[in-house]
Amino acid sequence: MPSNRLEAPLRKLMGPGPLDIHPRVYQALTTPVIGHLDPAYLKTLDRVGELLRNVFATQNRLTHATPGTGTSGMEACVANLLEPGDAVLVCVLGYFGDRIRQMAERQEADVTLLEGEWGKPADPERIKEELDKRSYKVIALVHAETSTGVLQPMDEISRLAKEYGVMILLDSVTSLGGVEVKADEWGLDAAYSCSQKCIGAPPGLAPVTFSDRAVEAARNRKHPIRSWYLDITLLDKYWGSERVYHHTSSSTLNYALLEALQLIDEEGLQHRFNRHLKNHKALVAGVEAMGLEMLVEPPYRLPTLNTVRIPEGVDDVKVRGYLLEKFNLEIGGGLGALKGKVWRVGLMGYSSSVENVLFFLSSLSRALAVQGCKSDLSSGLDAAMSELGA
Amino acid sequence: MPSNRLEAPLRKLMGPGPLDIHPRVYQALTTPVIGHLDPAYLKTLDRVGELLRNVFATQNRLTHATPGTGTSGMEACVANLLEPGDAVLVCVLGYFGDRIRQMAERQEADVTLLEGEWGKPADPERIKEELDKRSYKVIALVHAETSTGVLQPMDEISRLAKEYGVMILLDSVTSLGGVEVKADEWGLDAAYSCSQKCIGAPPGLAPVTFSDRAVEAARNRKHPIRSWYLDITLLDKYWGSERVYHHTSSSTLNYALLEALQLIDEEGLQHRFNRHLKNHKALVAGVEAMGLEMLVEPPYRLPTLNTVRIPEGVDDVKVRGYLLEKFNLEIGGGLGALKGKVWRVGLMGYSSSVENVLFFLSSLSRALAVQGCKSDLSSGLDAAMSELGA
Repeated sequence: MPSNRLEAPLRKLMGPGPLDIHPRVYQALTTPVIGHLDPAYLKTLDRVGELLRNVFATQNRLTHATPGTGTSGMEACVANLLEPGDAVLVCVLGYFGDRIRQMAERQEADVTLLEGEWGKPADPERIKEELDKRSYKVIALVHAETSTGVLQPMDEISRLAKEYGVMILLDSVTSLGGVEVKADEWGLDAAYSCSQKCIGAPPGLAPVTFSDRAVEAARNRKHPIRSWYLDITLLDKYWGSERVYHHTSSSTLNYALLEALQLIDEEGLQHRFNRHLKNHKALVAGVEAMGLEMLVEPPYRLPTLNTVRIPEGVDDVKVRGYLLEKFNLEIGGGLGALKGKVWRVGLMGYSSSVENVLFFLSSLSRALAVQGCKSDLSSGLDAAMSELGA
Repeated sequence: MPSNRLEAPLRKLMGPGPLDIHPRVYQALTTPVIGHLDPAYLKTLDRVGELLRNVFATQNRLTHATPGTGTSGMEACVANLLEPGDAVLVCVLGYFGDRIRQMAERQEADVTLLEGEWGKPADPERIKEELDKRSYKVIALVHAETSTGVLQPMDEISRLAKEYGVMILLDSVTSLGGVEVKADEWGLDAAYSCSQKCIGAPPGLAPVTFSDRAVEAARNRKHPIRSWYLDITLLDKYWGSERVYHHTSSSTLNYALLEALQLIDEEGLQHRFNRHLKNHKALVAGVEAMGLEMLVEPPYRLPTLNTVRIPEGVDDVKVRGYLLEKFNLEIGGGLGALKGKVWRVGLMGYSSSVENVLFFLSSLSRALAVQGCKSDLSSGLDAAMSELGA
C-alpha cells in the first residue's frame, strides 16, 4: 500500500449498496486503460450492451450504461422521456419514487402523484382510476424500492399501460441482476439500474434500456433535452454504429462491469435469482425466529434488500456503529420516513451468500445484546439453516 | 486473466486522453469497495477535496469531483451557473467551446457567441468590446482547448471580468495538473476538469470548483437547477459537513483519484509543470526538425496537448491505424473543423515522459515513411535530445 494512503478499511458490505465484489471484478479493474474510440474497446462496449440486454430481458438496441451512478440513469430516463408539459403519473411509495418526482418537476413535466404507504406496493386499481381520469404520456414507478424493501408486482401495471397506451419508466436499481426484470414482456420504455448492487460491479455506471419508441420520441421532442451529458440521442451515436465521440467512456469501469456481467452469464440468470431468493428466505427466517419483525408483508418482500424493523427502545445509530466497529459490517439505516425505524440489509450479487446471512444474524444479535435487547440467536440460526437446507 | 474476457490490448496512450496511469493508481483501484457514507470513506473524500484545492490553487470550499466524466463537470458548471434568460458570452475557438455553447442553449440562457479561428486564443480586446455593449452574467471560455492545442492566456481576461463584474466559467480539462490554473487569482466562479488527463487517474470523475458567490447564486436561483444529478446545492450537502446522501460515490474511482493527487503532491506542482513543459518542448523541437509543422503559434502552445499538422497528401486514418497496429500507440485525430488536418499528441500526467517523446517521434517517422512521406528522424531525435539536455 502506498505510504500516505488514508485509512481504507476492509468492510463486509451488507447495506443497500455498494456491495462486496467478486475477486475477478477487482482483477478486471486493473485491465490497462484504453482509449474510448479504440477498435478493441468498442468491441468491449458492444459486449457490455449485449450482456445487459440479456439481464434486462430485452431486444432494445439502446441498452447500455450511462457514465455515472444509478442516479445518472434515473436522470437519463426522466430527462429524455419528459418534456415541459408532459403528463406523468409518478407512484411514490418510498424515497426513490420521490426522487423521480423531483426530477420530473425539474423537467417542468405535468406531474401527478400517486402516493401510498411506505412499505407497500403501488395498487393497480388506483393507477387505473388515474388513467381513467385523463391522458398520460408516462407512468413512472419503482420496481424494487431501495428505501422500503418492497418488490412491485408488474404484470397488472404492465397490462394497464398497454391498454391505455402509456409509456412505463421503471427504476430497477435494486432488482436488476438479482430479481427478474422483463423489459420487453412488460413493455418498459425506459428503465435504469446501477452497477454496484445485484450486478456486482463497483459504483460509477448505470445500466439503462430504452425502447425504440422512447428513442423515437426523444428524437422528435419539441424542446431539446436539457441534459447534454445524458441525451440519449447523442449517447446512441457513440454506443451505436456511428461511434461519434460524446464522452470519455471509462474503460476501467466498463471492464469491471463486463466481468461482473460475465459472472452473471456463467451463473445463469435463473440460478442467480434462485440464489438471491434462498438467501433472502434464510435471512428472514432467522430474523423472525430471533424475535424481530420485517417491515414488508411476505408477498411483496424484495429478495435483495431486507428491511428489518428496529425493535422498540433500540438505538439505530449505536447498533450500526457497533456492527461497523466490532465486525466491520455495514448495514443501511432507514431513509426519509423510515429513518430510525428500519435497518436495510442487502443480499445482492456476490454478497448474497450463506456466510453473509449467518454472519449478519450473529453480529446483529450481539449488537442488540449490548443494547440490552435480547434476541434468540440459536433459534435464528436454526431457522436460517433449515431454509438453506442444511 | 478470466477466460472469456474480450481482447484488452496494452496500448501506449498519447492521444487527448485517457493517458497511461501510474502503477500506484492501478493498485489503488483494487482498494476494497466501501460504503459512500462510511466514516473512513468520508475522510478520503475530504482529502480528495483538499488536494484538488491545491491543484486548482483555490480556497473554494466547494471543490470536489462530480460523479461522471469531464463532460459531467462541464454540465455541472453550465447548468448551475446559468438560468433561462441569463446573459452569457461564450468564446468558441474550438470543439469544446462549442460544446459549452450547446449546453448553455439547452439551459435557455441568452447566449452571445464570440467566435474565432480554431488554433488561436480568444482576444481580450474583442471580449472587452462585447462587455462594453451590454451586461453579462457569465463569460465562458476554455483554458486549454483540447481540440486545437491552444493555451488561453488568462490574466487580461481575468482583469476584465473583475472590472465588469462578470463571472468566469472555465474549462480546464486539459490543463489542470499539467499547466498552472489559478482559480482564486483569476477569480474563477466555476471551473471543471477531468480525472484522466494531467491528473493521471482513470476516466470517470470530473474535478470541479465553485466560488462562494457561485454557490450563493445557485441557492438563490429563480428557476430550479434542471439537473438533479449535478445540482451543486445537493452535492454540497453530501461533500460538505451535512453528509446527506445524494449519489453512491464510487470509492473505486475516488481511491484512484486520491492516489493520483498524492503523486502530484509528492512531485510538487511546479516540478510537474516544468516536466510537462520540458517534454512538450522536446516533442515540438523533434517534430519541427523532422520537417513537420505545429498548428499553434509558439506563445499559445499547450504543453500538454500538441497539435501537429498532417503533411499534405498523408492519410490521417492510415497513419493512426499503422501506429495502433504496429506500435500499440494511440494518438488523437482532429475534431470538428480540424478533422483530417491535425494529429493531437498528448503528453500528460504520468505519460509526459522522455521515453514517450522519443517513442512518438520514431514511430511517427516510420508510419510516414510507409505512406511515402519522408521525414528526418535523425535530426528530430537530435533536436529532442538537445531540448531534454541529453
